[in-house]
Amino acid sequence: MSERSELRFIGTVESLGKLSRVKIFPEFCVGLEGLNNFSHIAILYWFHLRDNEEERHTLRVVPRRHPGAPEVGVFASRSPSRPNPIGLCVVELIKIEDCTMLVKGLDAFEGSPIIDIKPYIPRADSIPDARVPEWTFHGPPT
Amino acid sequence: MSERSELRFIGTVESLGKLSRVKIFPEFCVGLEGLNNFSHIAILYWFHLRDNEEERHTLRVVPRRHPGAPEVGVFASRSPSRPNPIGLCVVELIKIEDCTMLVKGLDAFEGSPIIDIKPYIPRADSIPDARVPEWTFHGPPT
Repeated sequence: MSERSELRFIGTVESLGKLSRVKIFPEFCVGLEGLNNFSHIAILYWFHLRDNEEERHTLRVVPRRHPGAPEVGVFASRSPSRPNPIGLCVVELIKIEDCTMLVKGLDAFEGSPIIDIKPYIPRADSIPDARVPEWTFHGPPT
Repeated sequence: MSERSELRFIGTVESLGKLSRVKIFPEFCVGLEGLNNFSHIAILYWFHLRDNEEERHTLRVVPRRHPGAPEVGVFASRSPSRPNPIGLCVVELIKIEDCTMLVKGLDAFEGSPIIDIKPYIPRADSIPDARVPEWTFHGPPT
């Protein structure tokens, strides 16, 4: 089996302060049908500014936005520097118009490529009492 | 900006019935440090059996494991056939030994490549009352 594969960008992020527009490229737009029946979605995006060899070889980080956080492995953090610079963010879906979604809570830079959209399903995705270390309570959610 | 990028596999799945072993390749193993402070993790994996042009051009699906589900856009489903065949599964982390994690609840085929591991953080990831359509209650969680 190959050790690599190809990722295709399906859209892009436009920041509007607390809200964001997620614009899906026209050729993928049909894939959004029925998504308006979900109140929340998981957005997978690409930290394009970290897509370089140095950042992709980073394996330990100090989560900078979290005061008091110790150095941890990248897989124990949501750092954008990681072997595959994929961001995962659960957001509220405000509305869909044509190929554009208006969402609330997306922590992505302007122009970030979108790589996947998934419906948020609480019975699979919601673990309210999951245990986390103390440092995750300080700073932004991720 | 390019419309594509390169995905690198960081490990592989070994199924053990309800439990799974997630084996991280030795060169990425340091990235797991500190992950044992989290009870749950999000695993991003690659549906390698769907990594072909036909499946990657699929934009509408009938979620087969969900009796009564209508045809929906792929982004309104967790179908493995999608432009980027990425699977997302929240699992319980039982233990980590060397470069191998024992997890509970991973819905991935034997041999699936792993592409990322993220700590599950309820204040970012848990939305217990998210609204979903009726069909998602039937069949498996995703």
